[in-house]
Amino acid sequence: MEAKTLLQEHIAKTASLTQEEFDYFFSHFKPLSFKKGQTIISEGDKVDCEYFVVSGCLKAFFINDEIKMYILQFAMPTWWTSDYNALYNQTPAQINVDCITDAEVLCLSSSDREKLCAEFHQIEHFFRWRTNKGYIASQKRLLSFMNNNVKTRYEELLALYPQLYNLVPKHLIAAYLGVSRETLSRLHNS
Amino acid sequence: MEAKTLLQEHIAKTASLTQEEFDYFFSHFKPLSFKKGQTIISEGDKVDCEYFVVSGCLKAFFINDEIKMYILQFAMPTWWTSDYNALYNQTPAQINVDCITDAEVLCLSSSDREKLCAEFHQIEHFFRWRTNKGYIASQKRLLSFMNNNVKTRYEELLALYPQLYNLVPKHLIAAYLGVSRETLSRLHNS
Repeated sequence: MEAKTLLQEHIAKTASLTQEEFDYFFSHFKPLSFKKGQTIISEGDKVDCEYFVVSGCLKAFFINDEIKMYILQFAMPTWWTSDYNALYNQTPAQINVDCITDAEVLCLSSSDREKLCAEFHQIEHFFRWRTNKGYIASQKRLLSFMNNNVKTRYEELLALYPQLYNLVPKHLIAAYLGVSRETLSRLHNS
Repeated sequence: MEAKTLLQEHIAKTASLTQEEFDYFFSHFKPLSFKKGQTIISEGDKVDCEYFVVSGCLKAFFINDEIKMYILQFAMPTWWTSDYNALYNQTPAQINVDCITDAEVLCLSSSDREKLCAEFHQIEHFFRWRTNKGYIASQKRLLSFMNNNVKTRYEELLALYPQLYNLVPKHLIAAYLGVSRETLSRLHNS
């Protein structure tokens, strides 16, 4: 689907904008294409934008002091991603975002988002709802970390991203769950 | 400080409301008092409200299948808390909220929050900002879980809640960090 149509349908689920208002809103987004493996945000970067995924799949991840990778989020079409702490607090990025597959995204700067929210109540409403969804997803991810029951966590992951098992290399799914590849195969076949 | 003044000063940092608008906004909040140890949300509950802390300290926590308690958040004056997943998705609570000390809170129902956001752009703006802060705090909490460096996590905790070490029993701070009380003493004295 064309990027503009995808974003318009995504917004329309939450906010009522006229075509003219949406055209104006859309004019603030910058389309970007990335190749599989390319990095969008690296730890330490200054972060000015958030990204709406049009096609492909991104991952947001963190590498700890023991060089262990943890995946915070897989971002698929109509998902948004960034390092929101770095974006809002103007601190260096603590996480990385890169492309699991070739990907197209729409990039919105923080200053444009704030301007648009101030100009249109409906756009502020959309971003409240969007942030809310992100907050809830983050809380669920936190609970899944606290929950030692790997089978439950695996089922939650598949409920959240039904197409994931076929789309994403198995070692990344294992890194999301914090388990070995062998444990993942056992969960998948049980 | 009186509950109404505390909320008004809290809101005024982000949103411009006339006194009349704030009075109307405030009329939707219900003041509640709790004793130390009392439960506000239990796992499995239907959740209809979110809570603005006026005085005292609450904790939001999760108990996993191995009966280990994890603390998601300490909520002090001017912090908001609830089980936001349960609140927005109308699912049973997955977490618990109770009172570490005697506490006074202001309770706002989900339906009133949505009504107020629709009525006033400035209130929608406030709640977008508030949710955003919650989202960022949740992301930081998630990163702190992924980070094996306990000393860094302890320093982050004290930066987030400077008065915590004197206010909250040590075993709860240890439960937030996921370490033993002995490790906590060592960190505190190092």
